[in-house]
Amino acid sequence: MPNAFCDQLERRILGGAAPAVAGLDPRLEALPQALLPGAPPAERILGFYREVLPLLAPHVCVAKPNIAYFERFGAAGYAAFEATCQLARSQGMLVLGDVKRGDIGPTAEAYADAHFPHCDAVTLHPLLGTDSVQPFLAWCRDRGRGVFVLVRTSNPSAKEFQDLRTEGGPLCDVLARAVQRWGEDLGDPRGYSPVGAVVGATWPAELARLRTLMPRAWILLPGVGAQGARAEDLGPAFDARGLGGLITQSRGLLQCFAPNDPEWRARVRQAAQAFAAECRLASRGTSGEGCGRSP
Amino acid sequence: MPNAFCDQLERRILGGAAPAVAGLDPRLEALPQALLPGAPPAERILGFYREVLPLLAPHVCVAKPNIAYFERFGAAGYAAFEATCQLARSQGMLVLGDVKRGDIGPTAEAYADAHFPHCDAVTLHPLLGTDSVQPFLAWCRDRGRGVFVLVRTSNPSAKEFQDLRTEGGPLCDVLARAVQRWGEDLGDPRGYSPVGAVVGATWPAELARLRTLMPRAWILLPGVGAQGARAEDLGPAFDARGLGGLITQSRGLLQCFAPNDPEWRARVRQAAQAFAAECRLASRGTSGEGCGRSP
Repeated sequence: MPNAFCDQLERRILGGAAPAVAGLDPRLEALPQALLPGAPPAERILGFYREVLPLLAPHVCVAKPNIAYFERFGAAGYAAFEATCQLARSQGMLVLGDVKRGDIGPTAEAYADAHFPHCDAVTLHPLLGTDSVQPFLAWCRDRGRGVFVLVRTSNPSAKEFQDLRTEGGPLCDVLARAVQRWGEDLGDPRGYSPVGAVVGATWPAELARLRTLMPRAWILLPGVGAQGARAEDLGPAFDARGLGGLITQSRGLLQCFAPNDPEWRARVRQAAQAFAAECRLASRGTSGEGCGRSP
Repeated sequence: MPNAFCDQLERRILGGAAPAVAGLDPRLEALPQALLPGAPPAERILGFYREVLPLLAPHVCVAKPNIAYFERFGAAGYAAFEATCQLARSQGMLVLGDVKRGDIGPTAEAYADAHFPHCDAVTLHPLLGTDSVQPFLAWCRDRGRGVFVLVRTSNPSAKEFQDLRTEGGPLCDVLARAVQRWGEDLGDPRGYSPVGAVVGATWPAELARLRTLMPRAWILLPGVGAQGARAEDLGPAFDARGLGGLITQSRGLLQCFAPNDPEWRARVRQAAQAFAAECRLASRGTSGEGCGRSP
């Protein structure tokens, strides 16, 4: 069964778009000072994205707003999150809501209802198991959405529990197999499923192994740039057609300028272009064991 | 070092309050039909809590709004969440924000900044490990807040990963030990710490074991009522003074009436009173191995 989110990703990347994701983590102190000085936080944030998303869109096909940085500004910030999703869509970008939700079934249903109307895909916590993911999978099946399940996160403490040795190998391997299972009946059976995974780019050694456990998963790769990971190490996420991985960067893209730099727009444009080139190169270097149909 | 959240809980329960938590999971279809018919969803929700919290407050000392049910109504719902927290506080209740957040360090900081201003405590996902919890612990240490870490959730699929056999026993045991560790230097060293845990009341067999692994944790016990658990099985969470456990109920309390029942206020009052009595009884039945100082 085809899935709109997967189809869009595939079509865009095969059409030449870079497998690049812009993380939108608004921090007031990092916004251009000249932009709406004195306006309320949520307005400044929205004003920034109104200017910056058109600069990113030609180079980066997915916007990933992290809702934490919006919630920090209360209901107005939450409204800015929804508006940012709309803005990104109006620029033709796909929207991956980095919301990392995870709750029991009936509550997961409420979360899916809350976020899928303005997000093409969302990030999810797997700890509560299958019934907590089911309401999101229903949206993947019936309404063309996608999910990215946390399998191996980019932070240093990820090792603490995600590497724990279990009866089924390290915990992250068990989670990877769940990702593969949850996506089984979804999407084109010969291609990628809408049930993707988050694997920190900071763990290149784990990446190849996790890829073999979930060959049909789009893998979201955070941690490049400020967290120290390098795009060039991410080859194993990609198949021979350059599909299967999505490299994401936040601070390196949208905090690449000093707040008082009048040339901030040019800097963002340059950073986006360079990041896209880096992602394209990484996706075409070595080729991993994704599920790509023969090219 | 004393902690305001723990002190409040302890003082109230020792003063005769029931160890009872009211889960606030607003569902439009379950609101009293006569209340603000035709008003926008967020207004109807807030109007309901404005009437119902004063009925609950004499019997239940903690309000636990689950943010998913508010997010479902977008920014207006999010504003209603914040306002509901304020209303509960104005009724003298403690507010436990059931937000189940969990993200890497800098993002966790944003979440803590977002929710602690209007919540006395929040629920957290542990999967990302210590650095993802640290920003919340800083609020516990410096500003008297509390957290409840997911250890063993109430849903049927909880078994899937939380029971996985690891080098340190079932995964939930490993998480329980982390809860104990994270709370080590927090709160009165002879009493409970502000790092609590969520253990589904639906797993009474696990409860006693988990309690021994984290003797200083307040244990939040969801699953009574609609999910089938019984308060009388929860003795092991409580110490000889009736401290250490918090029994939570949502649907059984605030969906205890038919939407067209004109007597809904009386039903809520009765349900709250009965629930409080049930919780008091459970907390004084058998006594578990909490960390209570001698009575």
